[in-house]
Amino acid sequence: MDRRSFLKTSALGGSAAAATTLAAPAYAQGKRTLTMVTSWGRGLAGVFDSAQRCADSITAMSDGNLTVDIKAAGELVGAFEVFDAVSSGQADMYHAADYYFVGQHPGYAFFTAVPFGMTAQEMVNWYYQDGGMELHDELGQIFGLKSFLAGNTGAQAGGWYSKEINGPEDFQGLKFRMPGLGGQALGKLGASVQNIPGSEVYQALSSGAIDGTEWIGPWADEKAGFQEITKVYYTAGFHEPNAGLSLATNRDVFESLTPAQQKIIEIAAAECHQWNLAQFLANNGAALQRLQSGGVKVMEFPDSVWDAFGQASQEVLDENMGDELFKKIHDSHMASSASSAGWQDLSSGVYTTQRNRVRG
Amino acid sequence: MDRRSFLKTSALGGSAAAATTLAAPAYAQGKRTLTMVTSWGRGLAGVFDSAQRCADSITAMSDGNLTVDIKAAGELVGAFEVFDAVSSGQADMYHAADYYFVGQHPGYAFFTAVPFGMTAQEMVNWYYQDGGMELHDELGQIFGLKSFLAGNTGAQAGGWYSKEINGPEDFQGLKFRMPGLGGQALGKLGASVQNIPGSEVYQALSSGAIDGTEWIGPWADEKAGFQEITKVYYTAGFHEPNAGLSLATNRDVFESLTPAQQKIIEIAAAECHQWNLAQFLANNGAALQRLQSGGVKVMEFPDSVWDAFGQASQEVLDENMGDELFKKIHDSHMASSASSAGWQDLSSGVYTTQRNRVRG
Repeated sequence: MDRRSFLKTSALGGSAAAATTLAAPAYAQGKRTLTMVTSWGRGLAGVFDSAQRCADSITAMSDGNLTVDIKAAGELVGAFEVFDAVSSGQADMYHAADYYFVGQHPGYAFFTAVPFGMTAQEMVNWYYQDGGMELHDELGQIFGLKSFLAGNTGAQAGGWYSKEINGPEDFQGLKFRMPGLGGQALGKLGASVQNIPGSEVYQALSSGAIDGTEWIGPWADEKAGFQEITKVYYTAGFHEPNAGLSLATNRDVFESLTPAQQKIIEIAAAECHQWNLAQFLANNGAALQRLQSGGVKVMEFPDSVWDAFGQASQEVLDENMGDELFKKIHDSHMASSASSAGWQDLSSGVYTTQRNRVRG
Repeated sequence: MDRRSFLKTSALGGSAAAATTLAAPAYAQGKRTLTMVTSWGRGLAGVFDSAQRCADSITAMSDGNLTVDIKAAGELVGAFEVFDAVSSGQADMYHAADYYFVGQHPGYAFFTAVPFGMTAQEMVNWYYQDGGMELHDELGQIFGLKSFLAGNTGAQAGGWYSKEINGPEDFQGLKFRMPGLGGQALGKLGASVQNIPGSEVYQALSSGAIDGTEWIGPWADEKAGFQEITKVYYTAGFHEPNAGLSLATNRDVFESLTPAQQKIIEIAAAECHQWNLAQFLANNGAALQRLQSGGVKVMEFPDSVWDAFGQASQEVLDENMGDELFKKIHDSHMASSASSAGWQDLSSGVYTTQRNRVRG
């Protein structure tokens, strides 16, 4: 790739040097503004919020020595152009869902979601304890990025459909919005799959350009207004059993920061992951009730559809195994997931089953 | 309570003033050391680790303007004396499980665990989005503390027993280690319940002073060595379906910090919550396999025992409802849990069931 790397330090020198000496003039003049481009329309529920929280935490914790200036999709570059903008140094950092960039490297899928992949807790376990973060960094080194997980929507809803889905054959010819490897899997069922930025999905669905869409879950979907167009809503989906969002900084910019500033970005991103996941999950329950009160039908795919999802998902993963780094990330991801899931079933799984039984 | 409040600022003035002016001499001389007392033996797996991570993050992000000096249990004050030490200003902050302090106020139980209460994800949703953090702060105002959730063990194992449990009658006369409201519930089944600091449990169990104990889960329990004493291990428990750990700072000390330093403590604590939960959950799977290879029998309580746990847990909660703040926290906790659980069942719950079915 065509990548230019340049530093965006103040005219009076990098703040790394300033921090070492703690000299007052350098500190005062070492204030930097970092431009964050995002894949999100301004104010888009949950996803723009998490970019905003990252920015606010970094600005607040650095005592104003770093100020993050957020750009919504289209304000500086388009929603899906943020990766190249930061990789090339045109912007300092991006907030996005890394599976938008499977064209740059298919391994990026694992840092948002792969079909039939991890739950949100399995993602957390893998990323922070079982090598996920280090693999994210290995990808980042190829593209000149320092990436951190920085948001999560939780398990995404199966989505909105113009008609009910009674078997895998109902996907034949269906025009559906679904990004990432999940979208590729849906394509194997005969769907005509498109990726469309979040802020443009409503228009596409209401105009009939697409027959259906997944977006996130009840809270964000309600704000997007899809219930005005169709009432057929599948709550559980195969494509994004969790969906991580990332904060990626141009690597040269990151390395020009002081160790304290680097740690602030790392911790702010991780905190934002937890906060954002809670934001989605805490809001989804009440939103679903409102949707149902408004006439939305909550549906569940039949087993035959889940079987087809499972087979198509495996085919998509298999097709990418020729890439050594993809396979390395895949194997790490699957091993961690299996280990986490075993304990989860024996502890929290048994508990929640018993809680439901005892409470009735 | 007998509470003295005093500031621990440097001789040259508080760093709040220093940050406002950004004057070099004040910054340089505004460095502070915060003494953190803990309920944990030095190096105790998971729990001391999370105190250490909080301390390291605060020190690193503040660029050395704050240095956190950790004391293990007994080094400055005893494991269960940390609350009073920080409330009185003898120490600056503590890291502990707040249900150790139900004697100070029963509402503290909700910030670690209540029997038949929340899963870890429900706790996160409640704390960061549904008012939990604000209620924690309401308790803190009574005792001169600024508290943040700062660690989590996930669902705790049912525990280690000298004999198998076949019905609720088997708890009659059983000497068992279990803190908090869970312990009170077990007492209603006829058990002789004790609270013993983590670093003293092995000795109590091996000497026969207690017939059984819960501690945390496979990873931490294996390190504690309980498998050397008994092989009967119940993986799912009713008493701590998640267990939060807290970082509490003396409120006057907290208010004397700069806004940036306050934000650093808040974000470091929240990040540590996620990191620590991942640490426990990622390590438990492999640890359980090792325990089983060593002859440990993994057991599940029969329904009759779960029914008794459920009834006793409700009785314990009901006994505390006369306290207005306890009831306020309880009602907030239960409403959030119910809302979270509904969406979880329809999304992640359906997904994991289908994943298990499809993958076989």
